[in-house]
Amino acid sequence: MPSGTISSVPGFLAGAVHAGIRSGNEPDLALLYSRLPCTAAGVFTTNQIKSAPVLLSQEHLSNGRAQAIAVNSGCANACAGGEGPRDALEMAGLAAAKLGTTVSDVLVASTGIIGMPLPMAHIREGIKEIELSSEGGHSFVRAIMTTDTRPKEIAYQFDMKGARITIAGVAKGSGMIHPDLATVLAFIATDALIDGNFMQSSLHKAAELSFNMVSVDGETSPSDSVFLLANGLAGNEIINQDNGEAFQHALNEVCTNLARSIAQDGEGATKLIEVTIEGAKRQADARQAARTIVSAPLVKAAVYGNDPNWGRIVAALGRSGVQITERKLDVYLNNTQVVKQGYPVLFDREEMQKSLKGNSVSIRLHLNSGDARATAWGCDLSEQYVTINSAYST
Amino acid sequence: MPSGTISSVPGFLAGAVHAGIRSGNEPDLALLYSRLPCTAAGVFTTNQIKSAPVLLSQEHLSNGRAQAIAVNSGCANACAGGEGPRDALEMAGLAAAKLGTTVSDVLVASTGIIGMPLPMAHIREGIKEIELSSEGGHSFVRAIMTTDTRPKEIAYQFDMKGARITIAGVAKGSGMIHPDLATVLAFIATDALIDGNFMQSSLHKAAELSFNMVSVDGETSPSDSVFLLANGLAGNEIINQDNGEAFQHALNEVCTNLARSIAQDGEGATKLIEVTIEGAKRQADARQAARTIVSAPLVKAAVYGNDPNWGRIVAALGRSGVQITERKLDVYLNNTQVVKQGYPVLFDREEMQKSLKGNSVSIRLHLNSGDARATAWGCDLSEQYVTINSAYST
Repeated sequence: MPSGTISSVPGFLAGAVHAGIRSGNEPDLALLYSRLPCTAAGVFTTNQIKSAPVLLSQEHLSNGRAQAIAVNSGCANACAGGEGPRDALEMAGLAAAKLGTTVSDVLVASTGIIGMPLPMAHIREGIKEIELSSEGGHSFVRAIMTTDTRPKEIAYQFDMKGARITIAGVAKGSGMIHPDLATVLAFIATDALIDGNFMQSSLHKAAELSFNMVSVDGETSPSDSVFLLANGLAGNEIINQDNGEAFQHALNEVCTNLARSIAQDGEGATKLIEVTIEGAKRQADARQAARTIVSAPLVKAAVYGNDPNWGRIVAALGRSGVQITERKLDVYLNNTQVVKQGYPVLFDREEMQKSLKGNSVSIRLHLNSGDARATAWGCDLSEQYVTINSAYST
Repeated sequence: MPSGTISSVPGFLAGAVHAGIRSGNEPDLALLYSRLPCTAAGVFTTNQIKSAPVLLSQEHLSNGRAQAIAVNSGCANACAGGEGPRDALEMAGLAAAKLGTTVSDVLVASTGIIGMPLPMAHIREGIKEIELSSEGGHSFVRAIMTTDTRPKEIAYQFDMKGARITIAGVAKGSGMIHPDLATVLAFIATDALIDGNFMQSSLHKAAELSFNMVSVDGETSPSDSVFLLANGLAGNEIINQDNGEAFQHALNEVCTNLARSIAQDGEGATKLIEVTIEGAKRQADARQAARTIVSAPLVKAAVYGNDPNWGRIVAALGRSGVQITERKLDVYLNNTQVVKQGYPVLFDREEMQKSLKGNSVSIRLHLNSGDARATAWGCDLSEQYVTINSAYST
């Protein structure tokens, strides 16, 4: 199902229009709708400055159900003054009126510039014009792109005692991407029948392994939200903690795939960087070390320049806060060992530079201090990142 | 004393040569020497990966005295394998032999690429050739420049009951600059007569206000060292905690001046950014918030682009870990208020963009939650930072 998208899930429809919130012709306002009310879960930004849509969606998710998502790009509706909460609520209300649901069953999300009000006239007109279809996921995902260069969408299927279950998701993310809970906008739908509490904890677990292990630039946005909606149409035996392994696995796959796509498409990125820490004493150490290295600007700039400058990797590890023993440290760059027990290993620099020119670079460190491991994803740092971000709002 | 340098301090001599550790013709090996043994203090990197010179200098400082500093650029002697400690010790020994001091009175520092051994043949030849003079501080400071574009040096004088005291310093720093203790190489000399314990605590205090409030890129180097040597030639009444206020003030001035110079000359920087937090509940909060904002890549890129995108400033504050109340927040950009009690304030965008084109940008936030304040310094993020760092070792 390689061309799958969020509306590939039975019972879900999506659509988008260009409402004029952004310049250009690309869609910037989108709806996702389930024919049936869904069990719903969310994870949100840890930034203390939260956008109005984040606060409203948290409230609407408090009963564990939802039926639709309304989302726009071009304006984050964060720090937007007194109108912010009112505008977010009106946006949910407009979607509810169009779709015939109650307002509290609509989740909202907004991404874009911080500090300006939502252009509500455009939202009001735009929502009317959106046409929903089972193919609409492809335009839905384009509507949430900001500096993204590629849409991120995936669908995944698995069988459970004869019932075929689909999980599909879309995501946006390119700047303000850093591991501190949900670091993107990501919307995931499934037709599984599933227990609400189990689903919330599954989503947390999947986000920990995926969205929370991605860094583009160390920034955390006030808008970050991941939503999961399950409409139960698959007719499976209800999924809970006793039989939930296959669901958890599928959800991890969907989230990890979206997270890797976000890293690969980081602002100005030319390559994916995958950092794996092995042999850590504790899982938290492995995560912390992997995230610090994948976020380090000097590591990112070296990867961009095809420069096997492993000293910067070791220096980033050293400031990560994780207890290490220099004399136990092994480091591998694209599977070639460059440090053994803390000492440099001679390697063929020309061969290495050639291998670093690929579109994906793997950095692996063995701390030789325990059994815990973790992987984090990021991207290189190019001049283009600066160019994009120095002229964003003007 | 605007053209002062470290050898402007009575009793101190300095000199440098091009030893061939780096390519080009610039000096890359330098010595500082005091005619008399000095009371000495140091602060060092918090990175767990420490260079061999850092470990050796920590050991040599354990008796609180020193008489000389030997320093090179082009190679950090960090993660350099088994020879690292031996080479650092030999470098100290070569300096001691030349200057007629004991080895343990020589401090060493190395800056440059991590993971390669010191080219000792160059060091042996180079140290012989160095000529010391009271003008030599100007070439000493050039010998410690790596990607620095300007030397950083300052001399400061004050009187204490008729005795004139000089404090002067030099520093390097351009990349791998982030607040976590000493973040640079900085060498400070004075002719004050001063109690050793008081001097160590004064140096800590000054570093907290200066070097630890500077960020260029969030990286902490394994080599960071700040040394302070006092030879007592000024003939003043001995300085200690009872009468040390003027000395502390002068040391703060010297360190802050060097730290600001480091920020202004960050890799690829076109402007200095000064972030001041006022009205914080605790001093630690003010420091943390100021450091987070001055380090935020999206804030730095916006300043580079003359973009008054204050939403990124507020978002960085929100992820700083400091407890804030959005509705109490005031934000000023170059002294123009852009946020009042959490709400956007209309301002003249054209005027603001014009003012952001200066070579220094001030960002001030009032949290209205207490009386604590702190200032941090950094620089904007330009394409040039990436260009410099993507091709550093190759």
